Amino acid sequence: MDLAANERIDELRRDGTKIIQSPGVFAFSLDAVLLADFAVVHPRDQVVDLAAGNGAVGLFVAGRVPGVHVTMVELQAQLASMARRSVSLNGFDDRVQVIQGDLADTWSVVSKDSVDVVTCNPPYFKVQPGSVQNPNTALALARHELTTDFATVVRITAGLLKTGGKAFFVHRPDRLVELLSTLAAADLAPKRIRFVHPKAGKEANMVLIEAIRSGRPDGVRILPPFVVYRADGQYTDEMAAIFDD
Amino acid sequence: MDLAANERIDELRRDGTKIIQSPGVFAFSLDAVLLADFAVVHPRDQVVDLAAGNGAVGLFVAGRVPGVHVTMVELQAQLASMARRSVSLNGFDDRVQVIQGDLADTWSVVSKDSVDVVTCNPPYFKVQPGSVQNPNTALALARHELTTDFATVVRITAGLLKTGGKAFFVHRPDRLVELLSTLAAADLAPKRIRFVHPKAGKEANMVLIEAIRSGRPDGVRILPPFVVYRADGQYTDEMAAIFDD
Repeated sequence: MDLAANERIDELRRDGTKIIQSPGVFAFSLDAVLLADFAVVHPRDQVVDLAAGNGAVGLFVAGRVPGVHVTMVELQAQLASMARRSVSLNGFDDRVQVIQGDLADTWSVVSKDSVDVVTCNPPYFKVQPGSVQNPNTALALARHELTTDFATVVRITAGLLKTGGKAFFVHRPDRLVELLSTLAAADLAPKRIRFVHPKAGKEANMVLIEAIRSGRPDGVRILPPFVVYRADGQYTDEMAAIFDD
Repeated sequence: MDLAANERIDELRRDGTKIIQSPGVFAFSLDAVLLADFAVVHPRDQVVDLAAGNGAVGLFVAGRVPGVHVTMVELQAQLASMARRSVSLNGFDDRVQVIQGDLADTWSVVSKDSVDVVTCNPPYFKVQPGSVQNPNTALALARHELTTDFATVVRITAGLLKTGGKAFFVHRPDRLVELLSTLAAADLAPKRIRFVHPKAGKEANMVLIEAIRSGRPDGVRILPPFVVYRADGQYTDEMAAIFDD
């Protein structure tokens, strides 16, 4: 396995799934792990992961669900390369592919109405004048809506999904109103929402959303909260269990 | 104090605030208490409580916040009568009034753009063919959208509030998508949301929403979850504290 300068191989799941990281460039976050755990994926599903970064979500799902097929789409060549080499490192080449390109063009490589599950951990932050210090760094592109935005993610997602197919997103709860209205406008009906709180008694800092293509608009379920850390700073049992799941 | 058949006087708050109830007709629910506790009210505020029922929300707020002025609006004459007599029972006549009428007509008795705080525990359930067994009972009118609906509540609320005034609602989380879009369409920006879970590990069965008239659309905060009961069926400390607050 070729590793570039500063790259290293980290454990992603306790079952042995590994991931190539480059901490100075981009490393997967808890958000990706929580999204991968939240996504309901069955063994023969066709899954597309948009804005895949270094591939954490797709690798996690492929490790957890034997037989599943995953297509990762990532704009940045360096990250797509890391993801592609991680796929090989884990022996997932026969069922996981990495496409380097703009997610807005995904329909040209994955047929519309053909996908069971779309996952996406998109850039969270709107671009405000002066808000991005280094717009060309890999991290800035991954965090800020410089090259895509949630409306585009949702439009592409809705087109990829079969009727009844499911989308899973992780995002910031301060944008909840916009997230839900954007989904509704694209005929993606939110079905389950789970808020992630860093500790018990703290406000949520992430939201996990499941939406169904052409589902009933009413009837969203608010799951029990997910709490990441105990008061003593250690992972909660639920968080620790995800890596073993 | 005149009590009608089956009416009784219950304690609403441990500070001595009392409420006339008629369990066969209508009794206040935990929802009203949680809403009254969630509402941020200051001593000189003008408060309007829409769909007041037997007055639990307004009585609770008046008991908790000395000097506050409250106008309750309730369609059903029997419930408005109970609320009015409870106001007298507590000696709140100089600062709490009860208006019997359709909340859609509130602007004719309370000036538009004049109110600091609106609270509302509205009917929760949409009317579906065959869904309401006894549409003329007080309970059916309080629970089902037979005589009003959330869009009407929100329209009237937005008109009553000063710019920067706040609205507080309790509703069902399965209607979250619609609730948020209805608020946004009326220029009420959700600012704080708190989900209420009957027990830890259970899905939310209520949602508390604070919205600000003409506020920024982004930036909603998801508060720590509110849990009503401990595993042993007793109130949690936080729930028990509300009655003493």
